[in-house]
Amino acid sequence: MRTFILLFGCQDKKGIVAKISDFILKHGGNIVTADQHSTDPQGGLFFIRVEFVLDEGQYAKKDLISSFSPIGKEFGADWNFYDKSETLRMGIFVSEPDHCLVDLLYLWSAGELRVKIPFVLSNFEKHRKLVTGYNIPFYYVPADKNKRREAELLSYALDSTDFLVLARYMLVLSPDFLKKYNKDIINIHHGFLPFFKGADPAARALKEGVKVIGATAHFVSNELDEGPIIAQEVQNVSHKDNRQDLIRKGKNLEKKALAGAISSYIDYRIIKYENKTIVF
Amino acid sequence: MRTFILLFGCQDKKGIVAKISDFILKHGGNIVTADQHSTDPQGGLFFIRVEFVLDEGQYAKKDLISSFSPIGKEFGADWNFYDKSETLRMGIFVSEPDHCLVDLLYLWSAGELRVKIPFVLSNFEKHRKLVTGYNIPFYYVPADKNKRREAELLSYALDSTDFLVLARYMLVLSPDFLKKYNKDIINIHHGFLPFFKGADPAARALKEGVKVIGATAHFVSNELDEGPIIAQEVQNVSHKDNRQDLIRKGKNLEKKALAGAISSYIDYRIIKYENKTIVF
Amino acid sequence: MRTFILLFGCQDKKGIVAKISDFILKHGGNIVTADQHSTDPQGGLFFIRVEFVLDEGQYAKKDLISSFSPIGKEFGADWNFYDKSETLRMGIFVSEPDHCLVDLLYLWSAGELRVKIPFVLSNFEKHRKLVTGYNIPFYYVPADKNKRREAELLSYALDSTDFLVLARYMLVLSPDFLKKYNKDIINIHHGFLPFFKGADPAARALKEGVKVIGATAHFVSNELDEGPIIAQEVQNVSHKDNRQDLIRKGKNLEKKALAGAISSYIDYRIIKYENKTIVF
Amino acid sequence: MRTFILLFGCQDKKGIVAKISDFILKHGGNIVTADQHSTDPQGGLFFIRVEFVLDEGQYAKKDLISSFSPIGKEFGADWNFYDKSETLRMGIFVSEPDHCLVDLLYLWSAGELRVKIPFVLSNFEKHRKLVTGYNIPFYYVPADKNKRREAELLSYALDSTDFLVLARYMLVLSPDFLKKYNKDIINIHHGFLPFFKGADPAARALKEGVKVIGATAHFVSNELDEGPIIAQEVQNVSHKDNRQDLIRKGKNLEKKALAGAISSYIDYRIIKYENKTIVF
Repeated sequence: MRTFILLFGCQDKKGIVAKISDFILKHGGNIVTADQHSTDPQGGLFFIRVEFVLDEGQYAKKDLISSFSPIGKEFGADWNFYDKSETLRMGIFVSEPDHCLVDLLYLWSAGELRVKIPFVLSNFEKHRKLVTGYNIPFYYVPADKNKRREAELLSYALDSTDFLVLARYMLVLSPDFLKKYNKDIINIHHGFLPFFKGADPAARALKEGVKVIGATAHFVSNELDEGPIIAQEVQNVSHKDNRQDLIRKGKNLEKKALAGAISSYIDYRIIKYENKTIVF
Repeated sequence: MRTFILLFGCQDKKGIVAKISDFILKHGGNIVTADQHSTDPQGGLFFIRVEFVLDEGQYAKKDLISSFSPIGKEFGADWNFYDKSETLRMGIFVSEPDHCLVDLLYLWSAGELRVKIPFVLSNFEKHRKLVTGYNIPFYYVPADKNKRREAELLSYALDSTDFLVLARYMLVLSPDFLKKYNKDIINIHHGFLPFFKGADPAARALKEGVKVIGATAHFVSNELDEGPIIAQEVQNVSHKDNRQDLIRKGKNLEKKALAGAISSYIDYRIIKYENKTIVF
Repeated sequence: MRTFILLFGCQDKKGIVAKISDFILKHGGNIVTADQHSTDPQGGLFFIRVEFVLDEGQYAKKDLISSFSPIGKEFGADWNFYDKSETLRMGIFVSEPDHCLVDLLYLWSAGELRVKIPFVLSNFEKHRKLVTGYNIPFYYVPADKNKRREAELLSYALDSTDFLVLARYMLVLSPDFLKKYNKDIINIHHGFLPFFKGADPAARALKEGVKVIGATAHFVSNELDEGPIIAQEVQNVSHKDNRQDLIRKGKNLEKKALAGAISSYIDYRIIKYENKTIVF
Repeated sequence: MRTFILLFGCQDKKGIVAKISDFILKHGGNIVTADQHSTDPQGGLFFIRVEFVLDEGQYAKKDLISSFSPIGKEFGADWNFYDKSETLRMGIFVSEPDHCLVDLLYLWSAGELRVKIPFVLSNFEKHRKLVTGYNIPFYYVPADKNKRREAELLSYALDSTDFLVLARYMLVLSPDFLKKYNKDIINIHHGFLPFFKGADPAARALKEGVKVIGATAHFVSNELDEGPIIAQEVQNVSHKDNRQDLIRKGKNLEKKALAGAISSYIDYRIIKYENKTIVF
């Protein structure tokens, strides 16, 4: 048995689910799970994620895509099929802090993050031992300001990855890079977005005397620290928490939010629209 | 526009969703939201909740039921249609503690709990003022041990309610009563089920030195403090919490779990199976 | 036995705790609980809250104050004694939304909020029945823009209250009012402070696609929606939550944060410093 | 400057804090933080943790102990001083699951767990590479049932460790071993204690249909899966969580509860009494 996923979004209209489920039935499929969301029953947008199984060898992803095309056209939809047996290739960019990197590599090695990792890339040489210990290529690309850095990043990432994760990568990626890479990039932000955009959220949390801190995993859009939010984690803090405590607690939030976001992403549970996400 | 809900469960098989969505389409309906769950893609049970809108006056609930019957039979399913414009009638039984009662009446009066409340019934006369202040009939039925009490409860509840809520009702309801009432009863239990079954969970929490306490809303089955769990709420506690603190925190958990469970119930989000619940 | 509380803050120095505990011992007291916080062991600020019991009739609050004065002076401290048997008088201002008002009145009537409530004041006449049902005076002061409104507020609140609670009071209080009232005012803000300062946080949460919402209880300072944060409550949300869901969840957060903040306040657990709070 | 900690417990009595703070003052110390707890202001037990700094070289721990002895005797107290600059030696026992081991080693290497780790011991050879990669000795002791195993454990642990952590060690330690080792042992239990004592909590959670799962870190006493609870972590689950999901979520809870408990322990924040803990 082979598992496929359909992600589909369009203007809401009668008969979408009937069309889709009939399509799956006619291809001999059995729906394992389906989630849908309508932004407004009258005139809103409609989104659906369907996971279904087919007998092995019956149809490949490309067959499904080609035979679904008329339906997609009929509804003016954005849609795609994914084959769950194909493993996504996730490139990791990281700067000095290693807590997210360590967490992701462990989850990956424990079989809890089903991706391929073609490389880890950093402007800090010190992660080489950890990374190569997992038999993953490590690329050191220093943090110079000129365009050569981004060209080098692109040469590593463009063909070898399906998406990128910025696991605490502190260097700005230019709109030009984003345009050329043109695939999804997931970033972990050390604070609640759309707040606390700048650096050093621990200092700011201390100064403001907040009683809750958070971390945000989001897709990278053109603006630094903006883009659709995927996951947010929060934790209570108090006057007892000093700068080190806030940083430590923040790291745990970052690990949890980032791993959760990647997990949703590789299960094809995320649909983006209007600078927001649906996470089924 | 009129909103209907279908709850449906059966052995998993190909084509269920196609059949159901085709049925809705043929009746001119538009699916607003659908949730489904398969306990196992191969040979498991399949459950679905579909919420859909029909143009006013097109079909009534009984039309849908009669025309869906062959499909239900085909799949050997448990199923029913619900009309969202019909408001369920919720009877409330309560003993001395009033925190859940107060909360439910407030939510009801604020329009956040869409039910009718035909009565509140108690073995404590003291709730009369609160209840009648909301223009709801109040019945005082003292806690005697003989069978007359249950006969009286039944005479109030049987025809006037669609389901009962035990909002901290401390008196046992006999299997005979449950059999005769034969509709759903939701209870709030002051502790985690399947644990902490007995009385005085605060005392026990203190003695055991637990660091988390909880409350459980569940359907009443034959056994006291058993039956499918609907919702559980938890809160951290510490050595600083004395008996009063634990009781106070427990009350908040009870309010939250009970109101949440009722809210799911009246939205037809709950499916029972194998002494468990699916809460969509 | 009579319980007193000392709140004390000064530049950190050796011997503070020894001095304070020796003072209590010499007055025949037994320390029930003590909490302290030092912002930095070297050259920081030091804060302590001591709760202690004295035999009935031995000393009154004023005796303690007068005999502690030299110690306070020695350390250049801000300090005060409180007598736990004296009940604080809490005035409530409220606009249209009644969820916090209902919650506070219930907690008060259930003995879980040990305050006197000299009045509830609103620019909405509709709360009169609820409030007077609790035998609490209700004052209707409409929302006109001129100075007379604040004069009227002041005439009700100045002498009759020890502190004010804005339980969703939407009208601005001018710096002039704050200066004349000159006691603590606790506000509940429908969002995370220092973020989401403006109106309609549900709309903004929807637009930004956040996955967590919050509420903040804080002291009122001169700036609207600013001032030391006392308590913050948070809850996960998702794309499934529509505007009504966000408002409903927000109300629960507001109730919880406000009741928690008031509870800390009337137990003298809060010390303000540098636009922040210590909540012991 | 050198930081010391006093843990102290006795029958509550007047003057304890005065005596202790006076003692610290006379030794030239400054109290950094103090936490205390009284189980009952009248006739209860009193516990205090005081953290204070002394100028370097003034007094050693043994000086403090010998000069505090009369005070301890006067109050009939259990007490001890700890020198924060001395690092505790933590032995780790682990069976097959490595999630807690990996987490602890990372936290340790990142400087977030200030202990020495004299060894990791396992009945699974497969952890050797990970452990020795951190330059920590690894001992393989297979799971035979005779007494030789425990003798070997003891020969590794008795002199080289100050406490032991069972980071998912599935083999029973006999009362004889516990008696001979006679120091603290912290265990992580995959479920809420005092509930879910047996094996395979995921299976049981599935069967019972619970909506919350938990993990418990506790001191080991004579009974398997009993002993004073230190920390408990919880997480919501639903019908969507299958066996694998429950195991994955459970692992996260176990990591968090165990790391939190160890962190409290090595900061000397835990006092045991009546089979419970105070965690300051």
